[in-house]
Amino acid sequence: MPTTARWAATLTLTATAVCGPLGGTALAAPGPGPSALYAPSALVLSVGHGHSAATATAERAVTLNCAPTASGTHPDAPRACAELRETGGDFDALSVRAGAMCTKQFDPVVVTVDGVWQGKRVAYERTFANECVKNSYGMNVFTF
Amino acid sequence: MPTTARWAATLTLTATAVCGPLGGTALAAPGPGPSALYAPSALVLSVGHGHSAATATAERAVTLNCAPTASGTHPDAPRACAELRETGGDFDALSVRAGAMCTKQFDPVVVTVDGVWQGKRVAYERTFANECVKNSYGMNVFTF
Repeated sequence: MPTTARWAATLTLTATAVCGPLGGTALAAPGPGPSALYAPSALVLSVGHGHSAATATAERAVTLNCAPTASGTHPDAPRACAELRETGGDFDALSVRAGAMCTKQFDPVVVTVDGVWQGKRVAYERTFANECVKNSYGMNVFTF
Repeated sequence: MPTTARWAATLTLTATAVCGPLGGTALAAPGPGPSALYAPSALVLSVGHGHSAATATAERAVTLNCAPTASGTHPDAPRACAELRETGGDFDALSVRAGAMCTKQFDPVVVTVDGVWQGKRVAYERTFANECVKNSYGMNVFTF
């Protein structure tokens, strides 16, 4: 942990210890939470068959946390987070997997991404011609 | 597991075994995923200071999975999921914690909930007068 982060953590803990009892009940204390140390990145990705999220039922949904560490029910959270960090959280900027072979079958699936990326709210939706095309977009993010 | 569910699981596995190789590459196979067995419930909850999510920065964000089991970075995922199951995923129907004591200080916080509840997409936003009022709404869901 860098020195500044350690100092921030120490100050936070001290402030909580000092100010906590003054705040009345524990509930009344504002509690700085992890936000004092990093901007949160927590997402839900879903996929369903159809043309748009408005009409498609979500058939699968996974969570993806990228701060402070990669976790969630996404099958490869560390790589998915790494990819998103590379694009600065821009889902349209994900690269296509090299050498992916997909049929031209039209069986559209719609992917949604909602939540927070580095403190900013995310509401993303993208439709792919079929599941294979979805999985070849980005290396890992949409493969769930 | 009820007999029907066990049959469904068996049929799904059989279908995958029979049809998988015919689908070409592994990517091309649609892959029923967990959706064949249960409707997904995966949410991101965020909180930030302000009147509306459009203007407030998300200061904290947690994930909450409620199917097939409770997990996520929410501090009490099992209880939060139980509460949501009681209301059928209706965030407006959460009860207020009995005996909660909050000041009338106006320091609004806005909570958002996005993702999927039992296969249906969720986009919820609610503003509370202060953090204490937020934490007293519902027993555990919004206490993060």
